[in-house]
Amino acid sequence: MYKINPNVECIECIKCYHRYPLKDYFIGCPRCFEKGKPSSVSLNYKNFNLNNNQSGFKKYTDVLPYLDFPTIGEGSTPTVRMKRLGDELGLENLWIKNEGQNPTGSHKDRYSPFVVARAISLGFETVAVASSGNAGVSIATYSAAANLKCVVLTTKNMNPIWKQAIVQTGAEIIYKDKPMDRWEHLQRYVLRNEWYPATNFINPPVGSNPFGVQGLKTLAFEIIEDFEQLPNIIIIPSSRGDLLWGVWKGFNEALENGLICDIPKLIAVEPFPRLKAVLGGDKYTDNFEGDSTHTPSVGGTTVTYQSIQAIKNSKGKVEVVPSFNAINEQEHLGKYGIYAERSSSLVLGALNR
Amino acid sequence: MYKINPNVECIECIKCYHRYPLKDYFIGCPRCFEKGKPSSVSLNYKNFNLNNNQSGFKKYTDVLPYLDFPTIGEGSTPTVRMKRLGDELGLENLWIKNEGQNPTGSHKDRYSPFVVARAISLGFETVAVASSGNAGVSIATYSAAANLKCVVLTTKNMNPIWKQAIVQTGAEIIYKDKPMDRWEHLQRYVLRNEWYPATNFINPPVGSNPFGVQGLKTLAFEIIEDFEQLPNIIIIPSSRGDLLWGVWKGFNEALENGLICDIPKLIAVEPFPRLKAVLGGDKYTDNFEGDSTHTPSVGGTTVTYQSIQAIKNSKGKVEVVPSFNAINEQEHLGKYGIYAERSSSLVLGALNR
Ligand SMILES: [Zn+2]
Ligand SMILES: [Zn+2]
Repeated sequence: MYKINPNVECIECIKCYHRYPLKDYFIGCPRCFEKGKPSSVSLNYKNFNLNNNQSGFKKYTDVLPYLDFPTIGEGSTPTVRMKRLGDELGLENLWIKNEGQNPTGSHKDRYSPFVVARAISLGFETVAVASSGNAGVSIATYSAAANLKCVVLTTKNMNPIWKQAIVQTGAEIIYKDKPMDRWEHLQRYVLRNEWYPATNFINPPVGSNPFGVQGLKTLAFEIIEDFEQLPNIIIIPSSRGDLLWGVWKGFNEALENGLICDIPKLIAVEPFPRLKAVLGGDKYTDNFEGDSTHTPSVGGTTVTYQSIQAIKNSKGKVEVVPSFNAINEQEHLGKYGIYAERSSSLVLGALNR
Repeated sequence: MYKINPNVECIECIKCYHRYPLKDYFIGCPRCFEKGKPSSVSLNYKNFNLNNNQSGFKKYTDVLPYLDFPTIGEGSTPTVRMKRLGDELGLENLWIKNEGQNPTGSHKDRYSPFVVARAISLGFETVAVASSGNAGVSIATYSAAANLKCVVLTTKNMNPIWKQAIVQTGAEIIYKDKPMDRWEHLQRYVLRNEWYPATNFINPPVGSNPFGVQGLKTLAFEIIEDFEQLPNIIIIPSSRGDLLWGVWKGFNEALENGLICDIPKLIAVEPFPRLKAVLGGDKYTDNFEGDSTHTPSVGGTTVTYQSIQAIKNSKGKVEVVPSFNAINEQEHLGKYGIYAERSSSLVLGALNR
């Protein structure tokens, strides 16, 4: 049903640039993994073309892994000018790209279609995702749309609204005591070849499923179309950096193919120093402790190589905004007519600096 | 700040076609009101042009009341093919226009920008809305976006999620014991000229604010653009028929101006016979009792003249789907990757017939 895009050339490590045949590498680059320096792999394309005359999300399929994939209206999210908030902050041109208006309410809906298409194209009957949040809802929903079974591995403190949304898709939920238990469980079934994994399960981690991450490039492509003059700076809430890297990759492909002249600086926002510590000299394979009580979507104690690459190559930086600030910032954005999830609200804290 | 579109010619009654100067008529057509046959008024335009080279929602402003209005990414909702569900139901071409992907999650976001623009252009400091649901959230959000005060009159059994969304915008919530009490309260402040009303407050009712209802035409305009060949039938969950009539009006303007050759049949879905009873001979000014426990968004005991007009003029009809069916139908849609509000899920019940 879903066939790989013939424009895909190979899989390539984003760190050592070694090229591999077009298969799944759930541990990321095998060579880098063996050296104890886990790194994501990515897809290379033969040609670059950003408009194949289809509409919406599908217009970018030439540089996406699958030409056809389950679609329920993802992408093409609004780019909204925040005039009054900008005036208040002394910023002449402040815009919000509202990813909350995706079908299941997050940017993950740009990721899920390609993971689900990948699983089905390989003949899997079940996709599995370790998530207590928006990734679980998104994968479950796209699985339902494509008639693929879905298992969501989560912990008992999952938000009841997310839980209800997952149950409604008919997905199975399995509760584990600790986050780490989810990964072990997922890994076991993946090694048995029973489940196709929609999320990473190794530690230290690499980026999420490379076929899915390709879908995140569309956010950069849309931003290129939304603005006559590209923004100087783009602020992105970040944990393992899938979105951060996907956006950078989209811009970088556009740059390499002469579509744009410069890449906006990407600013990652995190609730405590992780990526910031790494850019300051810590090892990216270390564990980092800190509070993300109010912003679980950008929680986690690890850093990925892809995050470093996106920040360095875009000449960006990292801002740390404490998790508890998100409560005020979410409220503050509400006064301007923007409903942001708490984790996304951290962006306002970064803007204030 | 917001100026009326100079292309607006006058206000016209949709029933007796009497023309009035461009003002607010909160009781609908004064002549029809006096005869005990309340009817909405609407706006007439001098010229019809559906594309003024702006993007998104703004491209239709030539036939909307204001050329400029608060905007946070409303409209341009996805039109999603439901292949598998269609096969199951024996329908070759089944599509969902997912209005849930508007900024506050409903089609009301096509309505609110013009009510808020209207209130501000008249110099009001406060807009008020009697609502326990999505209209309240939407008006509160657009008011926040435009820095206008907002009062939401509601009852104590308001859904806590909607309540939280309203509180976050900074709007004031006033709780009344009965729905009718909200309207009396609203009317009192409107007569004092303190609040601009975003919702109707007379009984028997007319359609909601005519400036706002104009925004609902954009749904028809988008459908015209989404399809090379227009759908034969469009199913719309309905209570007082603002959306139903707005969509019909959009199609009718397109028809009168030669943009389309025919109007799709509009099928209204309601949880118990109201409009259906009226089309069967009952008076539209009567009260109708029935259960809408699970579908409050299409509750209410009244019918409006505009609903009759939309159904008759589109050669459509009314389907009654009991409110409790919505639970199963919402679940059923979830299995296809669609999150529909319960009231919207009634559409599936109508499809099954
Ligand atoms: Zn490598
Ligand atoms: Zn009249």
